[in-house]
Amino acid sequence: MSLLVVGSVALDTVETPFGKAADALGGSALFFSVAASLFCPVKLVGVVGEDYPLEQLDFLRERGVDLSGLERRPGESFHWAGSYSYDLNTRETLETRLGVFAEFEPDVPEKFRDAEFVFLGNIDPTQQYAVLDQVRAPRLIGCDTMNYWIERTRTELLRTLERVDILFVNDSEARQLAGDYNLTRAARWIQERGPRFVVVKKGEHGAALFARDWVFFAPGYPLEEVFDPTGAGDAFAGGFLGYLSWVGSEEPEELRRAMIYGSVLGSYAVEAFSIDRFRNLDANEVAERAREFRDMTAFEIALQRAPDA
Amino acid sequence: MSLLVVGSVALDTVETPFGKAADALGGSALFFSVAASLFCPVKLVGVVGEDYPLEQLDFLRERGVDLSGLERRPGESFHWAGSYSYDLNTRETLETRLGVFAEFEPDVPEKFRDAEFVFLGNIDPTQQYAVLDQVRAPRLIGCDTMNYWIERTRTELLRTLERVDILFVNDSEARQLAGDYNLTRAARWIQERGPRFVVVKKGEHGAALFARDWVFFAPGYPLEEVFDPTGAGDAFAGGFLGYLSWVGSEEPEELRRAMIYGSVLGSYAVEAFSIDRFRNLDANEVAERAREFRDMTAFEIALQRAPDA
Repeated sequence: MSLLVVGSVALDTVETPFGKAADALGGSALFFSVAASLFCPVKLVGVVGEDYPLEQLDFLRERGVDLSGLERRPGESFHWAGSYSYDLNTRETLETRLGVFAEFEPDVPEKFRDAEFVFLGNIDPTQQYAVLDQVRAPRLIGCDTMNYWIERTRTELLRTLERVDILFVNDSEARQLAGDYNLTRAARWIQERGPRFVVVKKGEHGAALFARDWVFFAPGYPLEEVFDPTGAGDAFAGGFLGYLSWVGSEEPEELRRAMIYGSVLGSYAVEAFSIDRFRNLDANEVAERAREFRDMTAFEIALQRAPDA
Repeated sequence: MSLLVVGSVALDTVETPFGKAADALGGSALFFSVAASLFCPVKLVGVVGEDYPLEQLDFLRERGVDLSGLERRPGESFHWAGSYSYDLNTRETLETRLGVFAEFEPDVPEKFRDAEFVFLGNIDPTQQYAVLDQVRAPRLIGCDTMNYWIERTRTELLRTLERVDILFVNDSEARQLAGDYNLTRAARWIQERGPRFVVVKKGEHGAALFARDWVFFAPGYPLEEVFDPTGAGDAFAGGFLGYLSWVGSEEPEELRRAMIYGSVLGSYAVEAFSIDRFRNLDANEVAERAREFRDMTAFEIALQRAPDA
């Protein structure tokens, strides 16, 4: 199966209580790709300016990420700067310079248009919609968004969601989008507007997958040191859709495993600045952490011994 | 196995966005007992005043709760009044009248002193300690506490914890007690002070059991209507220790199941005011919801198909 991602390719300056990284590789499409490419080839569509250190993306190419849809334009790349509080639960944006990303109108190369799995990273919903007009017969469409778009382009976002199969949001975004504090009801609300599946990411509290008639929960991986949360959500989506694309199935059993691989890849994202943790990450480590997730959640109910007191 | 609980027996006045209950049955020992008694007989030690409607506790007796350790004293019962915000995540205490509970010095009846499983409900740590001096050879001691005791009687609480096997706390209490925002490190800190096991309750986000060398996560049951969260933590502890006491084991596999039964009983607590949801709850419903928990978390990792891209 072929997997297409459209999203930001940025340079991030991040301060956490543990240190600082300046102008490091970042952006939703990049975090998605480093995670997904552990499972399958990835086709990336994005834009960077003249200042982007493209040579630093060579290791992505070696991992099977096709960067021929990464446009280079006159001007500055997307720069984001932020800092995290000590508890790493609140993030302050210090600076956003959109640069060439402000005028980003994704142009999906002809050879990418037969992609079967598509991930619409966190960009303007109108541009997400335009991407869907360019891919011919996608089998499964995943989509991310954020409070900025929910507040400013609600109508356009809802129009895009009508065509989306899986929405990836964090818990506060789900609540904001549906206008309902209760997450279960919020997920139903979203499902009534298009997405068959809603994946709610809850940081240290894990993630929930709401299908029409079932739900699946994955815990947060219990890290003693959370180094830099930037990109964890995109790495989650990359692990999730990378795995599904690799197995070529969206059966419930595979979606459950996709939740685990998403959680695994998301957990690696926070262990280092930028995409650094993914540079030498291999399939054995991923499989080992997936087994840890199983050990952290598996139990047997002895049906014949149900309490009868 | 015999299970002893020492804690409050109160009259609660609760306002939620869904309604109001005045002077309804409440208190940690009561919520614990209605849950635990689904699995095994329970021996309760507590105190009430002359105003307590003891006849309303008859259904507990029928369920196998021995109330002969429930003292009745001249004066008023413990009254608590609180209201929940619309999101049910913040609770405001409107009134606390301790009444006879202020002078509560648990006197464990002779016939209860051989209890093998003990739950110290959320009371003064000095009184919790005094209970442990009265039971002869407890096999497993569970303990609850709250921010009030952590702030005011820290030394006494730490002294009690030295003798405790399982501490039940919510996430903010774990962080406050350990002085560490990271829950995994906070649990380690607590374990170094006595408890072999730390159960961290996280409301809608589920619960985590930290053992010395493993961890287990149970999700929150996805309720579309959370009616009244009062007592959910005590019902969780009741389901947890009731199950363990019933099977008479603290093997890891049983502790994992105990986490699920705790989650099941906690989820029932919030579905109605007071202990009302437990009045007609039977073992079949409990077993059915435990199976739902399994369906919400179980997955298989196909080891031979680990990604090798």
